Amino acid sequence: MYNDSPSTQLPSTSGFTMPHPDSVEYEIIHYLTQFKTLSLEEMKGILDSLNLQTFKKGTVLLREGQIANLCYFILKGCIRQYYLVDGVEKTTQFFTEGAPITPYEGTHKRTASRYYLACVEDSVVSVGNPEREAAFFEQFPHLKDLARVVTEEELGKSQENLSSFIIHSPEERYRNLLETRPDLLDRVPQYQLASYLGVTPESLSRIRKRITGK
Amino acid sequence: MYNDSPSTQLPSTSGFTMPHPDSVEYEIIHYLTQFKTLSLEEMKGILDSLNLQTFKKGTVLLREGQIANLCYFILKGCIRQYYLVDGVEKTTQFFTEGAPITPYEGTHKRTASRYYLACVEDSVVSVGNPEREAAFFEQFPHLKDLARVVTEEELGKSQENLSSFIIHSPEERYRNLLETRPDLLDRVPQYQLASYLGVTPESLSRIRKRITGK
Repeated sequence: MYNDSPSTQLPSTSGFTMPHPDSVEYEIIHYLTQFKTLSLEEMKGILDSLNLQTFKKGTVLLREGQIANLCYFILKGCIRQYYLVDGVEKTTQFFTEGAPITPYEGTHKRTASRYYLACVEDSVVSVGNPEREAAFFEQFPHLKDLARVVTEEELGKSQENLSSFIIHSPEERYRNLLETRPDLLDRVPQYQLASYLGVTPESLSRIRKRITGK
Repeated sequence: MYNDSPSTQLPSTSGFTMPHPDSVEYEIIHYLTQFKTLSLEEMKGILDSLNLQTFKKGTVLLREGQIANLCYFILKGCIRQYYLVDGVEKTTQFFTEGAPITPYEGTHKRTASRYYLACVEDSVVSVGNPEREAAFFEQFPHLKDLARVVTEEELGKSQENLSSFIIHSPEERYRNLLETRPDLLDRVPQYQLASYLGVTPESLSRIRKRITGK
């Protein structure tokens, strides 16, 4: 993946050593090099700009009504997006390793959040904000292209998620999750999963039995 | 919106005159200046780069299995995205004036499309491709920022659409459309609208009666 060096062991440049494959730092570099070859200097710049924070399971990162002014990149853990509708939590997304969460996207108008973000597991997250982002892009203007491609990728995924939700039945949605995100099924509570699939926990239990029974 | 000139009548610069507010050219400039102030030179560059094409109602722009290598910006008309599931059309999106459609987003891997794009009305569309896009950004590198912000805006909308679909009942979805896109209800056939809302045409008819009856 790292086309800058033909050797498998990358040289350390101005004090920079490639992060270990088991490290959270490696995760972010691995994610980004899917989209663009990065120079060692750019890798170092990205890692230096990380603002790693650890959150305990259950931590609420954003509440309905709060002005969202932070964005997140998950290095380890799982964060759930949900809405409170007539006192009932409706889960709309699970973000896991390698996922960006960008509540302040778009026109960068600061509007009150309509949803909650909460940690389903202990999580390690790089936390950003518009000012940090601007300073970073001033230092590495070439990486604006990377940011655009990453955003385009997320847009493609989001549009496909919406289409998939519209065209599939809850059972088909469950089968899709089994194929595409099997880890999720063990990581999140069943009532949250049921809500995300648009069914009651009882219906989800029946769906699981039907599929296991086959 | 056009902060470059204090007068309402913009001067014509190197042969460039602001398009008439009723024109399709005006539509695209108006859309883009929501996100970023544009110089007259940039406006001219954008309008010169347009590749306007007119499509008759019913024209299929993209089919399942085709490699998507074009993107679109709708200046006039309505384009529907749908999937064929067991021979049945499932409508997943309606794109109207001011909407970009970018089937080749993301990693720019060319994969076979899983959906169709078809004109619900006679439509005027600017058609782009990756090569035109690259040439344009070479000429106007500053507008890459604009492209990123537009993509972020679309991502925000798409994520909100998905959340909205998950948390709302079909009747609530219909009420939301009444509020946010009332024009759509008169522009598209009822069976397509029903599919988009995730109900049968009969259910949609009952929902309409319930709401009008109140």
